[in-house]
Amino acid sequence: MIKVTFLPSEKVTQISKGASILQAAISAGVQVVSTCGGKGTCGKCKVQISSATPGHITEIKLSDNEKKFLSAAELAEGWVLACQQLITEDMTIRVQVEQAANQRKTDFAGELKIKPAPGVEKVFLQMAKPSVEDQTPDWQRLVAALPDQGIKFNRRAAASLPRLLRESDYQVTAVLAGERLLAVEPGDTSRRCYGVAIDVGTTTVVAYLMDLISGALVNSGAVTNPQQVYGADVISRITHAGSGKNQLAELQEKLIEALNAMIRNMCQESGIAKEEIYQAMVVGNTTMAHLFLGIDPTYLAPAPFIPVFRDKVDVQADELGLDILATGRVSVLPNVAGYVGSDTVGVMLAAGADRLPGISLIVDIGTNGEIVLAGKGRILTCSAAAGPAFEGAEIKYGMRAAEGAIEGVGVGEDVELEIIGGGKPRGICGSGLIDAIAELHRAGVIGPTGRFPAESAQLEKLPPLLRQRLRKAERASEFVLVWGKDSETGEDIILSQKDIREMQLAKGAIMAGIRILSLEMGINLQEIDRVLLAGAFGNYIRKESAVEIGLLPSLPSERIMSIGNAAGDGAKMALLSVEECLRAESLAKRGEHVELSARKEFQKEFLKGLDFKRV
Amino acid sequence: MIKVTFLPSEKVTQISKGASILQAAISAGVQVVSTCGGKGTCGKCKVQISSATPGHITEIKLSDNEKKFLSAAELAEGWVLACQQLITEDMTIRVQVEQAANQRKTDFAGELKIKPAPGVEKVFLQMAKPSVEDQTPDWQRLVAALPDQGIKFNRRAAASLPRLLRESDYQVTAVLAGERLLAVEPGDTSRRCYGVAIDVGTTTVVAYLMDLISGALVNSGAVTNPQQVYGADVISRITHAGSGKNQLAELQEKLIEALNAMIRNMCQESGIAKEEIYQAMVVGNTTMAHLFLGIDPTYLAPAPFIPVFRDKVDVQADELGLDILATGRVSVLPNVAGYVGSDTVGVMLAAGADRLPGISLIVDIGTNGEIVLAGKGRILTCSAAAGPAFEGAEIKYGMRAAEGAIEGVGVGEDVELEIIGGGKPRGICGSGLIDAIAELHRAGVIGPTGRFPAESAQLEKLPPLLRQRLRKAERASEFVLVWGKDSETGEDIILSQKDIREMQLAKGAIMAGIRILSLEMGINLQEIDRVLLAGAFGNYIRKESAVEIGLLPSLPSERIMSIGNAAGDGAKMALLSVEECLRAESLAKRGEHVELSARKEFQKEFLKGLDFKRV
Repeated sequence: MIKVTFLPSEKVTQISKGASILQAAISAGVQVVSTCGGKGTCGKCKVQISSATPGHITEIKLSDNEKKFLSAAELAEGWVLACQQLITEDMTIRVQVEQAANQRKTDFAGELKIKPAPGVEKVFLQMAKPSVEDQTPDWQRLVAALPDQGIKFNRRAAASLPRLLRESDYQVTAVLAGERLLAVEPGDTSRRCYGVAIDVGTTTVVAYLMDLISGALVNSGAVTNPQQVYGADVISRITHAGSGKNQLAELQEKLIEALNAMIRNMCQESGIAKEEIYQAMVVGNTTMAHLFLGIDPTYLAPAPFIPVFRDKVDVQADELGLDILATGRVSVLPNVAGYVGSDTVGVMLAAGADRLPGISLIVDIGTNGEIVLAGKGRILTCSAAAGPAFEGAEIKYGMRAAEGAIEGVGVGEDVELEIIGGGKPRGICGSGLIDAIAELHRAGVIGPTGRFPAESAQLEKLPPLLRQRLRKAERASEFVLVWGKDSETGEDIILSQKDIREMQLAKGAIMAGIRILSLEMGINLQEIDRVLLAGAFGNYIRKESAVEIGLLPSLPSERIMSIGNAAGDGAKMALLSVEECLRAESLAKRGEHVELSARKEFQKEFLKGLDFKRV
Repeated sequence: MIKVTFLPSEKVTQISKGASILQAAISAGVQVVSTCGGKGTCGKCKVQISSATPGHITEIKLSDNEKKFLSAAELAEGWVLACQQLITEDMTIRVQVEQAANQRKTDFAGELKIKPAPGVEKVFLQMAKPSVEDQTPDWQRLVAALPDQGIKFNRRAAASLPRLLRESDYQVTAVLAGERLLAVEPGDTSRRCYGVAIDVGTTTVVAYLMDLISGALVNSGAVTNPQQVYGADVISRITHAGSGKNQLAELQEKLIEALNAMIRNMCQESGIAKEEIYQAMVVGNTTMAHLFLGIDPTYLAPAPFIPVFRDKVDVQADELGLDILATGRVSVLPNVAGYVGSDTVGVMLAAGADRLPGISLIVDIGTNGEIVLAGKGRILTCSAAAGPAFEGAEIKYGMRAAEGAIEGVGVGEDVELEIIGGGKPRGICGSGLIDAIAELHRAGVIGPTGRFPAESAQLEKLPPLLRQRLRKAERASEFVLVWGKDSETGEDIILSQKDIREMQLAKGAIMAGIRILSLEMGINLQEIDRVLLAGAFGNYIRKESAVEIGLLPSLPSERIMSIGNAAGDGAKMALLSVEECLRAESLAKRGEHVELSARKEFQKEFLKGLDFKRV
C-alpha cells in the first residue's frame, strides 16, 4: 500500500500501487472535480504533485490528454490530471480547493422557517425496579413507561437492554420513530438529537448535520460522488451497474463509503457520536436514489424509462451500511418519474410549489433540466436532456463555478469580466457562458442563429476591440474572451462556434420543456407569475442574459429569482418536520409527469428554441 | 485442519487440531448425547474410534473419566468419551444412532387436525407491460396487481425486481406475509410454500419442515444443541453468555449453524430450495429463546428471574443468519415467564388448554418441570426445578430414552425388564427409573422414606431373588437391576440409594408445584379431570408408577394421558395457521405465572412431597 497525502486538508489515504491520483482522492474523501468519469477528456481534475523533496518523485510521464489540457507553466509547476497519473510511490498532492458551489450563497439559518417536529422523538423514562412480585420483562417494563404502548419489539435494542437498565438504575432515554424504538440510552439524553440531510448529486454529494431539537445546521460537508470514476453522467452509471454481477453493489458501496467518511468527519468536528444521528433524509435524482439503495437502475436508461419505486422509501441504516445509529431510519424522498427525482421533490418542497399563488415555473438546470410548472391546481413536471454545457463540460474552456471561473461578462467597446474569487481567469462557467453569449448576441458578435458574422460588412459594424477578438480558427471562427497575458495559464481563453452550438442545444431543450408544460396547462409563457431557479446554476445566472438568449421566458426580471440549493433545503425540511415530509410525499403524488419523448410536439418546440431570441 | 468422518451417516467435518471429538460432531451436525457440557462427568458421549486401518491411529490415551464410564470390553473395541479425546489426525468415528426420543411415537399426520391458513400467502400475478404511456414504476405495478394495496416497500425484493419482471414476461408469484412482501418469484410457484417449525431444547434441537399448503410434514431432523459444550443446563449457558464480550454472540451463532445444517439437509433430501422456506416458527424455554435471538439472558438466572421479552417476537431471517429465505419471517412464540417458555405455550396450544372442559393439569417433565393448571377460566403456570434425574443424569446408570435403555420394570418374585429396542440393557432412562422405584416400593424393597430395608426382619420378607439383588455398597445399600451377564456392557446395572434420593427431590419439586397451583385455584387434587403429560418423558412413563410414587396425583389411570412432543406440535400448529398462532399469543397472555420461590408454602409442600406415597 502506498501513502498519499492531500494538501491543504492534510487528509491521508493508503492505496494500492497503480491506482490513479483521482481514485486516491476519492478514497481519502478529498474533492477533485472530474466530469468525464476519469477518461482524461474533460481536463477538470488538475492537481499539483507537491512533495517536500520534489526530486524524490520519479519523473512524471505525461499523457497526450495532459499535454492538451495543461499549459507549459502548469506542467513546469508539477500540475497533472489526477485521472491520468498512476501512483507508484508515496506522494503529496495539492488540490484546488473549491468552496462547494452549492454551499456558497445558501444561508440556511435565515432561510428555512421550520418549527422542528421531526420523526424522531426522545423520551426520558424513570421506571420502578423489578421484584419477585413484579416480574414484568425488561422490554414490557420499558414499553409500559412510554407514552405510546404500540411500540414494536426491536431485537437489536432489546439485546443489550438488561444490563443498560440495571447500570443506569432504570433511568433511560428512549429514542422513538413512530412505532419503532430505535435505541435506549442511559440517563437523560433528551437534549441531544441529530439527523443528517443528504443530497446525492451525480457529481457532488452534500451532507448537512442538523440538530433536530433546535433545527440548527451543525455542520456540513461536500465531496465528489465517488461513482464519478465509473462515468460522469447517469447513463454511464446505469450502464456500469448492469455490466457485471457485483457492479451495482460496488457503486452503492463507494457512495456509502464517501457518505460515511463525511459523517465521521462532521461528527468528529462537532463532538457528536454517530449513534446520536437517528435519521437520514436523502434526496437525489432517480438514478442516484436507486444506486444509493442498491436497487437495479437498468430500465431507467432505455425508453420507457421505468424506475423501480416512486414512493418514499424507509430502510434501517445498517441495511445500507450507512454509519449513523445502526437502527436509525434512512428515508429517501419520493420521486415523480425516472428523470424527475426526489431532488426535484425537495426543490418543490423548499419552493412551496403547493402554496404559491398564481402560476410558478421552477427550473433546476443541470445535465438534465428538471422543470416544474405549478398552477391551476396542478403540478406538472418534465425532464429536458440539456447535456453538460451548463456545467461547463464539452465547452472548450468550460469549468464549474469555482475560483478562477468567469461568471459574468459585459460587452461594450470591449469585453469586461467578473471572475469568481477576483483573481485571473482560468475558464468559464455555465452562467458566464450564458452571459457571454447574451452580451455578444446583443452586441451583434453572435447572430440569432448562433453564428459569428461571416461577411466583412457585418464585421465592420463592430467596435475595433471586439473585432480584434474575433478570429478564424481551424474550421470556424472563434472569439477571444481573455488574452493570454491576462489569464491564469497565460493561454487565450476563447469561445468557439462549437461552444455556442452546445449552448443552443442545451437551452433549446430547456425551453422546449417549458413550452410543452405550458401547452399542457393551457397557458402562454407571459402568464407565468414567477420563475424560481434552483441549484448552483440559479445562484450565478444573470437573469437578463438567460432571458436574452431565450433560455427563460421573457418576463420582468423581478419575477425571476434564485432559490439556492433548494433540493438540499427540501431534504433538511423533511428531516426536521414530519409535516414537511408528508408535504413532500403529497407533492410527489400530485406531480403529473409529462414524458417529453412521448410528445409529438417536442421536436418542433425544440427546433423553435434553438435561436437566440426572447420568447 | 483435520478431517473427521462420522459413521454411519458418513458426515464429514474439517476441524482444528486439538478440538474434541464432541466438538467435531457438533460441527458436523452429528448428534452425540452429552449432558454434562463436555466435562467428562456424565459418561454419555460414548463413540467408537473406527478407522479403516486401526493401527493408523496414534495410541489412545484414556482419561480417568473414560476408565470410570467405559467397560474393559468397550475400551478394547475402541470406545471412548467424545468430550475427552482431542483430535490430532484424520479419523473416522462411529456414533450410536438414537432415534430422537421426541420423534418416536409422534405420528403427526394423524394428530394435528389443522386446516392450513399460514401467515405466508402466495399470489400469482399477470401484469401489463410498461410503455411510454404507462410509466408506472415496477414496484407500484406489482403492488397494484396485489389483492392488498397496503404492502410495504421491501428494498431487498425491489432490488432485483426489474430484471425478474422482464425475464418472466411480467408473470410472477408474490410471496406475502401480512403487509410485507417477502419475495417475488418468476412464473407461477403458488403450489410450493414451505415453513419450518423449530423446537430449541436445552439438550436437543428439533426441526420440522412443513408444507404450508397441504399441512403435511415433509421432513424432520434432530441434533444435539451445540451449546452443550458450554454447559448442560440453562444456568451454565446464561453464565457463559455473560462471561465475555462475544460469548452471547457465539452461543447464538453455534445454535444458528446447527439449525442451518439441519435445514440444508432437509432441503436437500426433500428437493426444496431454502428460499422456498418463507417462515420459521420457534419454541423453546425462555433462556433458549433469548439465546436464539441473541438477547442477553443474564437476569433470567438470579431472582427475580426477569426475561427481556414476553410477547411473540418477529424478526427477519437474515438478521439472525437463519438460512431460509433472507427476507423470511422468523417468529418466536411468546413465553409466560423466565422459566415458563414458548415451549410450554406450544404445549398449551397443542393440548388445547383454552378449550378443555373442567380442570386440566398439564405437565412437561424435564430438568425444569413446567406445570400448567387450566380451569375455572384461569390458566396457572409454574416451573419446578426438578433437577436432571428425569433425564437420567446424576443417576449412576441413567441414560436418555434410547436404544438399550430400561424403560419398564416389573417386580414380582424377581425383576422383569422392558428394554428400548429389545436388546441387552445399557442403562436406565427416567421412565424406567420411576417404574423401578414404584415397583420396588410396592414390593417393599424401598420404604416410604426412600430407604432400602436395613433390618433383617424386613429383608426376610422379600422373595429370595430380590433379596439377592440387594447388597451393601461403599456407604449404603444398592439394588442390582441387571446382573452383568445380562447387560450389554457385562457390568451390573444398579440402583443406588443416591439415585433414589435424586428421584425423591425431583418428584417432590414437581408435586409441590402441582399442589401450589391447586391451592391457588382453590381445588383439591382429586378434582382434576385430566392429567396431560407432554414431551418425551410423557411418552414412556407408566402412569400407575408415577401415581404410585406420588409424582402425579392419585387419579384413575384413564384420566392420565400422554400427548407426545406437544411443544413441537404447538410450533407446527402456529406455523400452519395464523389463527392458531393468535391462540398461542392469547394463551401466553392469559397464563398467570406463580413464582414458586416467592411462595412461603413452597418449602412445606416440597418436604411433604418427598415421601413415596399416593397423593
